[in-house]
Amino acid sequence: MAKANTSPARGMRDLLPDEVALREWATTEILGAYARYGFRRVETPALENIARLTGGQGGDNEKLIFKILKRGDKLNLSAAKSDADVVDFGLRYDLTVPLARFFAEHRGALGTPFKAIQVGPVWRAERPQKGRYRQFTQCDIDVLGDGSTAVEIELIEATLQALAALGFEGLVVRMNDRRLLGAMVAECGFDDARAGAVLIAVDKLDKLGVDGVCKELAEAEHPEPAVAKLRAFLERADSSGDPSGDGALDALAELLAEVEPAVNGIAGLRRLTAELNKSLPGGARVQPDPTLVRGMGYYTSTIFEIALEGVPYSLGGGGRYDKMIGDMIGGEVPACGFSIGFERIVLELQQRGMGPREVTKLAALLHDPKRDDPLAVTAAARAWRDSGVHVTVLPKRKKLGTQLDELAASGVDQFWVFVPDSAAQPKPLGEGAAS
Amino acid sequence: MAKANTSPARGMRDLLPDEVALREWATTEILGAYARYGFRRVETPALENIARLTGGQGGDNEKLIFKILKRGDKLNLSAAKSDADVVDFGLRYDLTVPLARFFAEHRGALGTPFKAIQVGPVWRAERPQKGRYRQFTQCDIDVLGDGSTAVEIELIEATLQALAALGFEGLVVRMNDRRLLGAMVAECGFDDARAGAVLIAVDKLDKLGVDGVCKELAEAEHPEPAVAKLRAFLERADSSGDPSGDGALDALAELLAEVEPAVNGIAGLRRLTAELNKSLPGGARVQPDPTLVRGMGYYTSTIFEIALEGVPYSLGGGGRYDKMIGDMIGGEVPACGFSIGFERIVLELQQRGMGPREVTKLAALLHDPKRDDPLAVTAAARAWRDSGVHVTVLPKRKKLGTQLDELAASGVDQFWVFVPDSAAQPKPLGEGAAS
Repeated sequence: MAKANTSPARGMRDLLPDEVALREWATTEILGAYARYGFRRVETPALENIARLTGGQGGDNEKLIFKILKRGDKLNLSAAKSDADVVDFGLRYDLTVPLARFFAEHRGALGTPFKAIQVGPVWRAERPQKGRYRQFTQCDIDVLGDGSTAVEIELIEATLQALAALGFEGLVVRMNDRRLLGAMVAECGFDDARAGAVLIAVDKLDKLGVDGVCKELAEAEHPEPAVAKLRAFLERADSSGDPSGDGALDALAELLAEVEPAVNGIAGLRRLTAELNKSLPGGARVQPDPTLVRGMGYYTSTIFEIALEGVPYSLGGGGRYDKMIGDMIGGEVPACGFSIGFERIVLELQQRGMGPREVTKLAALLHDPKRDDPLAVTAAARAWRDSGVHVTVLPKRKKLGTQLDELAASGVDQFWVFVPDSAAQPKPLGEGAAS
Repeated sequence: MAKANTSPARGMRDLLPDEVALREWATTEILGAYARYGFRRVETPALENIARLTGGQGGDNEKLIFKILKRGDKLNLSAAKSDADVVDFGLRYDLTVPLARFFAEHRGALGTPFKAIQVGPVWRAERPQKGRYRQFTQCDIDVLGDGSTAVEIELIEATLQALAALGFEGLVVRMNDRRLLGAMVAECGFDDARAGAVLIAVDKLDKLGVDGVCKELAEAEHPEPAVAKLRAFLERADSSGDPSGDGALDALAELLAEVEPAVNGIAGLRRLTAELNKSLPGGARVQPDPTLVRGMGYYTSTIFEIALEGVPYSLGGGGRYDKMIGDMIGGEVPACGFSIGFERIVLELQQRGMGPREVTKLAALLHDPKRDDPLAVTAAARAWRDSGVHVTVLPKRKKLGTQLDELAASGVDQFWVFVPDSAAQPKPLGEGAAS
């Protein structure tokens, strides 16, 4: 018989015990930190009605939906003109669209503000590529129904506590305000209608540098004086050499000195970051960064992103999105969220060898299962288990060496050949087999 | 604008914070107990290749698969003759089929025996009905690659420890052996080819009683003497009045006195249950039950089921299935598993008011966010959090009464209006609002 294909579905992956243990530990620590800040976990089903997933809030992700075929009488393949005729549900591609629906459905039972944690898988039918999977875990906290900056403070503090609990040190949160970005683009003299494109270019500052960004803008035929004005600002912001971010903010304050709402906004950002810096855990700091853009979509004011020294991508980010939930479900619902890049965090933990305290895993081998008193083994095993050791009880095989090799492969690190009334003690695996 | 439909997808449900907290606690306790027995958690993707899900191992569940529409060039609707032409993946309907694939794929890295825990959602497109959902959680432990009865002992002991950790007392594990059932049916004189149907009738003993079962068999035109012989056995087994199950086993021993393998099997079952009963946690007991059938499908010898006094359905069950994995992936792989009925367990916990220790949830309200020193609040909040209290910091609203009502709805049980340098203490919510 030909060997059957036993790979996971294309673009997906199996998780082996060591990785599951790491992910479980990380999840528990993160959830614990968030719970202490009053966040409560909710869960929505993996499937949503297809109409909800294709309502426009998902942007490009809507092209990547795994769609579910209708069943029974509802399925009429021969009359089908397009996808839409034969599907009724889809797998969620993020946790935000389901959260908005959840909030609308259960609002009365949830109280205000509603402080949600969500951790769970999402699915996107992307072309498979190294390190990117079609099922991955997202981890979001959101506060719905409160517009005060106490929310931003709490989201950032709680997230830094969560990452500190995992052992990360020296985290930097960059902060900006979507409205300041808008004022900056306008003040430089760019065309309002092309503001989005300008910000997409500015977003590449880390990769391209000031020259690269300005070159891209010039080539796209933005007005020369606007590009020059932006260049002057970016150069000053970039070269301030001030890791506090204050120098960059000074540069922005100078650029926008005549724009009254921006002056207030800059003062607000300065106050917020200063306040946060007085009380952050684990050597973390917050810095204003007037060049931080993030995905433009739905943010309305504060935006933030977590960076870790030496890591080229952010470990999470978020911001305030006061319109989106209201637009989806009607009414006004101020909202602010912080999303941890769970898969990236796991990758960093793996690469740095960080993780939970190791637990001793012991195999108790029955020398002669027929003769040995099973109760004695049970009692001994229970004592070990109560002391925190993970114990598996097995009959000793004739080929002990092979058995020990296989046990080592399965994660066991000590073994103990059980002979009643003997004083035999557990031995580390690898110290030589037969004994 | 018309109110949009915000219900979950048909037949599925949202989980609110209280239920998620209960489920999270139950999962953690169960996983903790299993880990102490050396089981390690693995995860497979929600989607599997459709061919794997429709290979025949799933029985009727294969009719209930949510199937995923192909995408891009691979989808050709107009040429499609049937389902099979337009789908490539499906959502898993259980955790056993994926486990077999996982084991085949990663066998070399897993060691022997491979002791797996799996907890996760599965999906079945059943007609929606009260208390039954199309997405629900399964919780399985399996030992692959070891044929000794040490495995049965460990599975049962570990599962009883897990349920004891949740607070369940007085659990009874009924045990039988698939081969004894076969011998019983043959010895009574039923037609071999109809043995399955006989057992399906015997499986209804709890519901129909001896008369009902025998009536059903007579109506189905099984040989009269066979039905009479079975009736005599069932009556004796049923009326032994011996909760240890020994009386019922005596009845079976008498019936099968001439069948040598069965005599050995009965002795084995008696020994196994006696051994287990010497060391079970939380007042649990194991009893042989020669009338226990369970789903007939793939079990090859030992089968077991957990009952709880006063609960009309079982809380879990399992058994040995030494053929199935080997049949699916080639080779011989002895296997034995125990599945906890997670959704039923959660329901029982809810109905009995069992659950985790309550944590105090405190809202710290800033009397005047502009004036009050945020650092003082942060320091106070951190001290509370370190002591295990869940604290949320919010600006006090003008309508404090309404705010407190909403906070109470969101699960907060104490509030604290923070005024710097005052000696104000947290107060229980509900003790009168303004203060």
